[in-house]
Amino acid sequence: MLAVFGHQNPDTDAITAALVYARLLGRQGIDAQAYRLGEPNFETAFVLREAGVDAPPLLETLPAGAQVVLVDHNESAQSLPNLHELTVTRVVDHHKLGDLTTTQPAYLRFEPVGSTGTLLLKLFREAGLSVEPLDARLLLSAILSDTLHFRSPTTTAEDRDAVAFLAPVAGITDVEAYALAMFAAKSDLGDTPAETLLRMDYKVFPFGEPTAPHQWGLGVIETTNPGYVFGRQSELLAAMDNLKAEDGLSGVLLSVVDILNETNRTLVLSATEEKVLREAFGVETQGHVADLGARISRKKQVVPVLETYFTPQG
Amino acid sequence: MLAVFGHQNPDTDAITAALVYARLLGRQGIDAQAYRLGEPNFETAFVLREAGVDAPPLLETLPAGAQVVLVDHNESAQSLPNLHELTVTRVVDHHKLGDLTTTQPAYLRFEPVGSTGTLLLKLFREAGLSVEPLDARLLLSAILSDTLHFRSPTTTAEDRDAVAFLAPVAGITDVEAYALAMFAAKSDLGDTPAETLLRMDYKVFPFGEPTAPHQWGLGVIETTNPGYVFGRQSELLAAMDNLKAEDGLSGVLLSVVDILNETNRTLVLSATEEKVLREAFGVETQGHVADLGARISRKKQVVPVLETYFTPQG
Repeated sequence: MLAVFGHQNPDTDAITAALVYARLLGRQGIDAQAYRLGEPNFETAFVLREAGVDAPPLLETLPAGAQVVLVDHNESAQSLPNLHELTVTRVVDHHKLGDLTTTQPAYLRFEPVGSTGTLLLKLFREAGLSVEPLDARLLLSAILSDTLHFRSPTTTAEDRDAVAFLAPVAGITDVEAYALAMFAAKSDLGDTPAETLLRMDYKVFPFGEPTAPHQWGLGVIETTNPGYVFGRQSELLAAMDNLKAEDGLSGVLLSVVDILNETNRTLVLSATEEKVLREAFGVETQGHVADLGARISRKKQVVPVLETYFTPQG
Repeated sequence: MLAVFGHQNPDTDAITAALVYARLLGRQGIDAQAYRLGEPNFETAFVLREAGVDAPPLLETLPAGAQVVLVDHNESAQSLPNLHELTVTRVVDHHKLGDLTTTQPAYLRFEPVGSTGTLLLKLFREAGLSVEPLDARLLLSAILSDTLHFRSPTTTAEDRDAVAFLAPVAGITDVEAYALAMFAAKSDLGDTPAETLLRMDYKVFPFGEPTAPHQWGLGVIETTNPGYVFGRQSELLAAMDNLKAEDGLSGVLLSVVDILNETNRTLVLSATEEKVLREAFGVETQGHVADLGARISRKKQVVPVLETYFTPQG
């Protein structure tokens, strides 16, 4: 049986892609089970509740040689800890290709679209399979989540077309209202511990030389209520400091993305990160906050800049 | 403009995939130019002559940052020497995923089918584009070449279906006769220098630890006339010895695949390679020749065995 899972610190795309792709593989006669590598965030919990489905079971480890399917990620730092011992038979992803390798020819499907959901809809169509209302709702939610309802610069025409197709199938008549409800659920952070907030949408990227990379931890909080987050700034900086020390990171940043105003103000831990932000982005940090302007996509507007900054030019 | 090319020491799949994918991208409004990274072999020359098209131009270098499309390969050791400086925007391949990375999200399409041609036919269909007779002939030739007209264990049902679809479009009524003519052209090696024979279908694979790999050079001669090749055994062994020294390889093998009888007798240079063949495949070498039986696919039956042999089990 194939184990299908998205990245650690899962977001709505990671969880729903695992659920939907496992169902699609099942309809193609391939035995597959969806898993998650962490707790669903508040937005994802809302999406699953509205859809009337349970979150997939938590996966913590698999024996060497187990056959796995990766969705919405491909880098080992974001996957199961022993990924290099597992047999990757399929990948469906929309991120840059990192350190993934396979020991046999495999099915790999990467496209630079806004959401894994958009790519999964293509797979339904290519397989000649109808999209059931549940799948449509989950895919739609993933696309709205990853593109911030088309606000993110990662948005493509295919993402818009997919939502236009999926909404009536899912029975969602007011897509904007549904998206706002998703974002409100995501922003209702209550008394979530600062460490949990930091790790909610958090990924480690190895920049520069593959043999001796600079490991940077990049967290994002997408919210309709950034004031709430900055009200907890000192707690969050303390959590970032701990995380940096515990995981031996070269740098750590926490971007607070104001979904409705499409701005990114980033929490900056120390002079090390300040220097990199100044040299890589040309922005100054004041009181631990750097204004990254409209750079609201980590994938498209933050990671490539840091990758270029840390990569020696040959 | 995108530069589209297959692997070094190109075979029919590598050359035709570059030609056809560049044409397909052009029909999708994407400016693309096909190239080759080496001389067409005798089979490919026959295919191009029969199709009435020229080989794509030779590509030796590209400036850093140039946008490239890889077909029928993905490992840097088989590509342009400065691949790590180039921007890979698309890959269409049917091999295992090696050391490829991308700096941005890209189009990657890998499937475990017998030929890149089979995958390219899918791309035509998914794009809703008809396949022109020239493209059909080139794709058909690639599939027949890579699967040895369905004799190779890499053959899938999709390869057979693709040939059944393409033959009438290409105007080829007797597929078996066409395949035999291709294989006869490939086997008509004449007075080709031994070094050229060795490098005709030759790839270097890094086995084991990525930071300190065992570099093995694996050549294949697919022929309907193995007697001719073994008649030149001493010349070929001398060429293998030179290649091993010049390129600092850990091992070098030359598999002589009898297409019609579906057997692989492999030329073995030294005691180093003998030991690995004994321990990895359980076969003995006699007079520099190891009988690898029906293992006629380097990709599926030789490379994975060596990869497993050299990979420390975690």
